[in-house]
Amino acid sequence: MAKTGDKPRVIIVGAGFGGLAVARQLVGKDVEVVLIDRSNHHLFQPLLYQVATADLSPAEIAWPIRSIFSHTPNVSVFLGEVTGIDLAGKSIIARDHRVEFDYLVLSTGAATSYFGHDDWEKVAPGLKNIGEATEIRKRLLLAFERAENAENEETRQQFMNFVVVGGGPTGVEMAGAIAELAKQALSHDFRRIDPRDARIILAEGAPRLLGAFPEDLSEYTRQSLEKLGVEVILNQPVSDITPQGVRIGDDFIQSANVIWAAGVKVDHMADWTGAKTDRGGRVEVTPDLAIPGYPDAFVIGDAAHVAWRDGLTVPGIAPAAKQMGKYVGKRILDRIKGNNTPPFTYKHAGNLATIGRHRAVIDFNGFKLKGVLAWWVWGLAHIYFLIGIRAPALVLVQWAWSYIFRKKGARLITGPVEPDPEKTDVHRPL
Amino acid sequence: MAKTGDKPRVIIVGAGFGGLAVARQLVGKDVEVVLIDRSNHHLFQPLLYQVATADLSPAEIAWPIRSIFSHTPNVSVFLGEVTGIDLAGKSIIARDHRVEFDYLVLSTGAATSYFGHDDWEKVAPGLKNIGEATEIRKRLLLAFERAENAENEETRQQFMNFVVVGGGPTGVEMAGAIAELAKQALSHDFRRIDPRDARIILAEGAPRLLGAFPEDLSEYTRQSLEKLGVEVILNQPVSDITPQGVRIGDDFIQSANVIWAAGVKVDHMADWTGAKTDRGGRVEVTPDLAIPGYPDAFVIGDAAHVAWRDGLTVPGIAPAAKQMGKYVGKRILDRIKGNNTPPFTYKHAGNLATIGRHRAVIDFNGFKLKGVLAWWVWGLAHIYFLIGIRAPALVLVQWAWSYIFRKKGARLITGPVEPDPEKTDVHRPL
Repeated sequence: MAKTGDKPRVIIVGAGFGGLAVARQLVGKDVEVVLIDRSNHHLFQPLLYQVATADLSPAEIAWPIRSIFSHTPNVSVFLGEVTGIDLAGKSIIARDHRVEFDYLVLSTGAATSYFGHDDWEKVAPGLKNIGEATEIRKRLLLAFERAENAENEETRQQFMNFVVVGGGPTGVEMAGAIAELAKQALSHDFRRIDPRDARIILAEGAPRLLGAFPEDLSEYTRQSLEKLGVEVILNQPVSDITPQGVRIGDDFIQSANVIWAAGVKVDHMADWTGAKTDRGGRVEVTPDLAIPGYPDAFVIGDAAHVAWRDGLTVPGIAPAAKQMGKYVGKRILDRIKGNNTPPFTYKHAGNLATIGRHRAVIDFNGFKLKGVLAWWVWGLAHIYFLIGIRAPALVLVQWAWSYIFRKKGARLITGPVEPDPEKTDVHRPL
Repeated sequence: MAKTGDKPRVIIVGAGFGGLAVARQLVGKDVEVVLIDRSNHHLFQPLLYQVATADLSPAEIAWPIRSIFSHTPNVSVFLGEVTGIDLAGKSIIARDHRVEFDYLVLSTGAATSYFGHDDWEKVAPGLKNIGEATEIRKRLLLAFERAENAENEETRQQFMNFVVVGGGPTGVEMAGAIAELAKQALSHDFRRIDPRDARIILAEGAPRLLGAFPEDLSEYTRQSLEKLGVEVILNQPVSDITPQGVRIGDDFIQSANVIWAAGVKVDHMADWTGAKTDRGGRVEVTPDLAIPGYPDAFVIGDAAHVAWRDGLTVPGIAPAAKQMGKYVGKRILDRIKGNNTPPFTYKHAGNLATIGRHRAVIDFNGFKLKGVLAWWVWGLAHIYFLIGIRAPALVLVQWAWSYIFRKKGARLITGPVEPDPEKTDVHRPL
């Protein structure tokens, strides 16, 4: 589609935290904003693990992108998939169509990385979108059903062993939530198995959990998880994942339920931009977050490699994407007016991770907090963040309500149930 | 599985309204209750159309069956599929397993019937379970996305034409809710189409909508739907459904969105019971709801043909299933004790149907109600019914909250997006 009208057109690819922040900056300005995403909803990814563990429903953490921009006529939303970029020709390619832009923002986020073992994906799903979250939810819930129906102790235990690979915030949160599912929510629901017998294993190759946090919080996290009933294995790399289980160090743990929370990668950026990318596939952007040589094309969020402090790069977390988006929105307006913009600087608010429903760890640039108080701060921080997406207080209250009062209320097995690898027929009663 | 222990074993197949009511009657009694269902959740089917039209999330109308019987040790719940019955041998067959019973209750409900045109199913899904409801939701929402991306007016209109086949309560409710989706919830969300231009057509072969209601309420329903923007076509049979549209009477209406709400049938009963079934596949049961010749095996709910009044049979609605379930629970206890039980009598509370969010029609055995007041009665009746399933008031309040305040909040397109029949690429932006 060629441009019509006089307004500069800004194309934003990806409606995550970064893309939304750009669009927000440009609402009501003298630009035509085109926001393209593969899915029709913005996802509040920090709470995605709660869909996977049946705490929340998808609609409680995802909002139609269109509804966010219902009343902002200069923003158009398109459900579509970008397949290529022509930076020199100032256009994007979506299948066999070409769409021209004056300014481009790539905020396409990150995908799950299996570090070269793509065959593990089918056995050990990652957690990046609603589809994967409901798939994991289905597997977790079916595992207990299959254990209840199992014919012998070995099969039963295989279904009752849950292995989470990766000890970052997502892995810690998943392991804690699965422990609560097994040891608390389901504890009275079965007659032939006791869900409290489930083994929940969290495997991390590094010497400690939550590597981005101070060491004492890592240790506190390990202890808290163990109190919830999680076995934490540190310092042992995962070397194989099969339908039968996981090889961790020298041990093979029988398990039909492996969840991958170990790594992310950025797709397409080298191809699309021709720019230098780091090992994770992130574009090494200029100080104003542009693609080198293309001052009107920007990369933000998880897809951008931005230098920070102590040799680190800006972390792939929601507040960072939001800050970059806000900056690029302003930067585009400045360029239109011919103004300069100071380089982007990242303000790190802190690191948060929750451990089950009543404990969390927080590191606010050295000010550390842990336990129940940290959990409340974690909750408030998320509510504050949610307000940024959906103003209506009603939605917010409903969300808080759901999370606080509805314990594992979304325990639905939906979608096709495939025969499981061990041929234990879930459809066989008794 | 052979029986162990002395207690009589009652197997209940199907955890709908009827099956749950039987199990409830037997909680804490001196019997072993085995409740088997193909899915892990009890579904509040009267509100299923609200999942299809993005008003409610699946978890708001479905509850894990296990959680309902967490604290009732004499009730076991199994996820499983029954594949046959051996009445003479007093056992059920689930795949290659055989499970013995002393008493059996079949409460397996009804399936969608295409009146011999099973090829229509793929084009025009019915509405019987969560999977079908989210499939319809996806199709409805994608239709608008595809219309927005369409290249010409003809394709656009095809995606903007919605046809609901069948003018019973489900068809009326679907048509009203789709009209509200298009004309209200989505009205500001698109830039190239105006969702208010959508045509919503409700096709009924009989001379009036809601055939079970008094004529003046049928007429009121038609007028109310027309006010919401629904075109009601009466007296015209649907003779063909293809990916391009629907033939209604002599007209062919181009439409990529056809929803089937026209008929139900009962599967398996003739095979399983050997008993006489009616045209709809329902078992003609004895006055105590047993299978003729097998006084310990009962059929209840949609699967049972039970004479009522004026030559009619007891309707396939939730309150009827619940009454039958309660009766059969008592009947089993009476048989164990050697007591007689008076024959089952159906108490008809009334017929309800809602027309969008603010109107309903109610017929309480001749006492008629319509409009806003009827809508509130409809809402209260459903809340009352919900209390019967899940006691906790919190869940109830949350449900009411969701429905009253969260307008079309569950507008999520999830699951794989297949290429559409017209080759309009939904993934192509602009």
